[in-house]
Amino acid sequence: MATLTELTDQLTSDPASWEGSPLISVSQISTSGLQLLFQTAQSMRSLVRSQGGDERLKRRVLASVFYEASTRTSCSFQAAMMRLGGTFIHVDGGKGGNTSASKKGESLEDTIKCLECYTDATVLRHPTTGSVQKVALGGGTVKPVINAGDGVGEHPTQALLDFFTIWDELGISLDVSGGEDVGEGKHEGPLVVVLLGDLKHGRTVHSLAKLLARSSLKHELVLRYCSPKALEMPEHVKDYVKDFPNAKQELYTDMIDAVKGAHVLYVTRVQRERFENPDDYNAVKGAYVVDKSLMDVAPSKMIVMHPLPRVDEISTEVDSDDRACYFRQMENGMFVRMAILALILGAP
Amino acid sequence: MATLTELTDQLTSDPASWEGSPLISVSQISTSGLQLLFQTAQSMRSLVRSQGGDERLKRRVLASVFYEASTRTSCSFQAAMMRLGGTFIHVDGGKGGNTSASKKGESLEDTIKCLECYTDATVLRHPTTGSVQKVALGGGTVKPVINAGDGVGEHPTQALLDFFTIWDELGISLDVSGGEDVGEGKHEGPLVVVLLGDLKHGRTVHSLAKLLARSSLKHELVLRYCSPKALEMPEHVKDYVKDFPNAKQELYTDMIDAVKGAHVLYVTRVQRERFENPDDYNAVKGAYVVDKSLMDVAPSKMIVMHPLPRVDEISTEVDSDDRACYFRQMENGMFVRMAILALILGAP
Amino acid sequence: MATLTELTDQLTSDPASWEGSPLISVSQISTSGLQLLFQTAQSMRSLVRSQGGDERLKRRVLASVFYEASTRTSCSFQAAMMRLGGTFIHVDGGKGGNTSASKKGESLEDTIKCLECYTDATVLRHPTTGSVQKVALGGGTVKPVINAGDGVGEHPTQALLDFFTIWDELGISLDVSGGEDVGEGKHEGPLVVVLLGDLKHGRTVHSLAKLLARSSLKHELVLRYCSPKALEMPEHVKDYVKDFPNAKQELYTDMIDAVKGAHVLYVTRVQRERFENPDDYNAVKGAYVVDKSLMDVAPSKMIVMHPLPRVDEISTEVDSDDRACYFRQMENGMFVRMAILALILGAP
Repeated sequence: MATLTELTDQLTSDPASWEGSPLISVSQISTSGLQLLFQTAQSMRSLVRSQGGDERLKRRVLASVFYEASTRTSCSFQAAMMRLGGTFIHVDGGKGGNTSASKKGESLEDTIKCLECYTDATVLRHPTTGSVQKVALGGGTVKPVINAGDGVGEHPTQALLDFFTIWDELGISLDVSGGEDVGEGKHEGPLVVVLLGDLKHGRTVHSLAKLLARSSLKHELVLRYCSPKALEMPEHVKDYVKDFPNAKQELYTDMIDAVKGAHVLYVTRVQRERFENPDDYNAVKGAYVVDKSLMDVAPSKMIVMHPLPRVDEISTEVDSDDRACYFRQMENGMFVRMAILALILGAP
Repeated sequence: MATLTELTDQLTSDPASWEGSPLISVSQISTSGLQLLFQTAQSMRSLVRSQGGDERLKRRVLASVFYEASTRTSCSFQAAMMRLGGTFIHVDGGKGGNTSASKKGESLEDTIKCLECYTDATVLRHPTTGSVQKVALGGGTVKPVINAGDGVGEHPTQALLDFFTIWDELGISLDVSGGEDVGEGKHEGPLVVVLLGDLKHGRTVHSLAKLLARSSLKHELVLRYCSPKALEMPEHVKDYVKDFPNAKQELYTDMIDAVKGAHVLYVTRVQRERFENPDDYNAVKGAYVVDKSLMDVAPSKMIVMHPLPRVDEISTEVDSDDRACYFRQMENGMFVRMAILALILGAP
Repeated sequence: MATLTELTDQLTSDPASWEGSPLISVSQISTSGLQLLFQTAQSMRSLVRSQGGDERLKRRVLASVFYEASTRTSCSFQAAMMRLGGTFIHVDGGKGGNTSASKKGESLEDTIKCLECYTDATVLRHPTTGSVQKVALGGGTVKPVINAGDGVGEHPTQALLDFFTIWDELGISLDVSGGEDVGEGKHEGPLVVVLLGDLKHGRTVHSLAKLLARSSLKHELVLRYCSPKALEMPEHVKDYVKDFPNAKQELYTDMIDAVKGAHVLYVTRVQRERFENPDDYNAVKGAYVVDKSLMDVAPSKMIVMHPLPRVDEISTEVDSDDRACYFRQMENGMFVRMAILALILGAP
């Protein structure tokens, strides 16, 4: 039983390091490992575009186990598996779901150990922080477990697809010492990323900030946190990022200021129910809505990202703007998950 | 963004007209298009009977999205996809379903645009009339959307499988000007179709009446509407049919009168809850039950159809009668859906 | 319409006897049929271990219809189908499930007859005892129906996987008159099986006791029933077993006595809610928990089985003991179901 700390940076540019490994946290992936993953995701995109997929995971079965609904995550893993010729069984452990055993008092570890008797890997989402790690590393499981989100903990495939999108859209260069030279990406100078909206509660933006900071970029990283006062980026994230000399952090409350010179605008939703005082909500509501007027003043190459679903924080009039890349980001979710499944199941 | 009117009769005997097209309404299909569809459905039946299916939709993924339970429709689309080598992801958007995004306020358009990032086409059922059309034609979707029923609106694959069953069982000839000559069907003289039961509320019988009327048959069409007074065919359907000179409409209240000389008896259920006054229900209850005694006086070649599920409006003693074709009709549902998927995905 | 009695021992070592047959009860399988099934299950295990599966059920579609949640049974049938290249459609007929038709008053027979229009076989679980048999033998179905549990009735695939596990782990010899000589298993002398825990309510232990008794073993069979007084094996099981001269039955209340010289310890859970008087529960609670201290006095080759899920009736410290075979038993569930599907679908 390894600890997560022992697994830091264990997933490298060597595909053998991925085969059979659990994926609990992005901290397991070294910068050269990221490069392998991202290049594999790009080749998955070419594959899907040219022929829909292939057969490399033929007769491999994935257990897709969700104790919390997450349509996109589950569907993209399922589609990823099938586009590589594999199949899946789905267990809906949520309310009204089809799991009978947990109602009888079975432990999560036992449930997963039973399901893996039929399958080759497990994708697991669970509302309890740390639960997936416990099952994957200390629960007696013998097949790889992939974390599809555990409470306010990690959701590594989301962070990876977000970073992949930035890397791929902008042409970011990773500093891979000893890694295969893949030439320089087209991006030059610093990388300026605006994280916008509710930065206090958003697991997605926490993970992305940490992942960008810990990865060795060949660019200076500027993280701009733009949010209402009440929803600022928490200290634990800022403290984490602070340790990386290559990363700068800046605070903004005004969206128009924040996007000046930015390369990425990552939008999250400001929800009414996050404010104790309705007046506070009314004061900021609308101040963080991305619409055509913002896009008119934003840099011409700045990409707009969003983890989706959105409600009204990005106006639909922005959808037809080439810089709007949230649906490409969605697609990337499948390509990155195809890459992860292929690597972990030993068929990269 | 095309309107439905602009799409009238756009699906023809040319398979290229189908590839990538949404299917919202039967009005999109010309008579020669019907002939192509029906012939393709017949060849699907041969394929399934001889070898279970084939691989023409290998690595194609269908999004099966149901905001309303419909076991048969969803299962037949899923089986259709798999019998052609394809796969599907299923999203149950109903109560207790596995969709998380719509609960967060996401629009239906966004949900479908996300899912199509992973898939090649979408089958969508939704309780709101017109919703599927809106998504398919004006929602920014880029992959074909197939309507699997939208409220009291259309359910085109049901109408098509019903018409296919009549065409196939009786040997109906379509008047396909310029179409490939496929010889005459074995049916001669007029085509007499009895629509029985609750004609007021039945979307199925409305659609079938309209589809039969608008298609160019080489037979005179006689539609006999047989129902209790309180559940008569609505004026809007009768008005629609009236415009087609080849179609005659007749009203009946007595089932035995109606089946005289009929070729098709299409049965729907008379439900107690449709009557304001229980006495009215008690007065007609049993008057529209198809049993052995009716079959004894019915024409020897008259087929009995039903969209299923049935409760007691067709006695199970009729099941073993060769004229009972409702389970063959069910099977046809899969063959017609295989044909639609193959045509729309460009692999007819 | 055959009766179950007429089908006794009809499934033999001849694969043709299995093709297209329903599987409602273990009583349908002769001892030579068991041997064929068990050998096929072993070859399925080799197949999965060496290459994950094969394509023998390509383009075959299974209807997986569960009116009661049973994650393991449904998942193992689904995985079994896919490992042989087949596919499935799943209908969740339970509370919050996706079946619409039964809510409209459709009979179970009609539901299954509709689904089999799309599929090649049906796996059916239903809470009503006898319901599966009724559908399979008298309901007008034309494709084979496999019983996945009907109330307190039969759950034949569970009993078969249990017996397979004993046969396989211990090397049991079956007395197959006229059957192909496959040599002797390694087990010698009598076969001593302890059934432990709640023997009154456990469908699993009832079925296993009967199946072991009715099969022609080349060993004397000793069934030791070890339970609290209030949860003893019911008379109807003891009466059934009594008719087989090769089977001996013994009663125990003490677990340590029971395991002396035993080859199999089959554990089930003693549930608090089964006791009318809480004092009775408190008196026995803990007396039937399998832990390291029991394993220390148990025979060195005695296997420990459990149908799972377990709660605390087997301590997790036992999991790492080689004699703990409940997770191997789970795996066998898939191999036995692969064998059943292959035989019934004519591709052994």
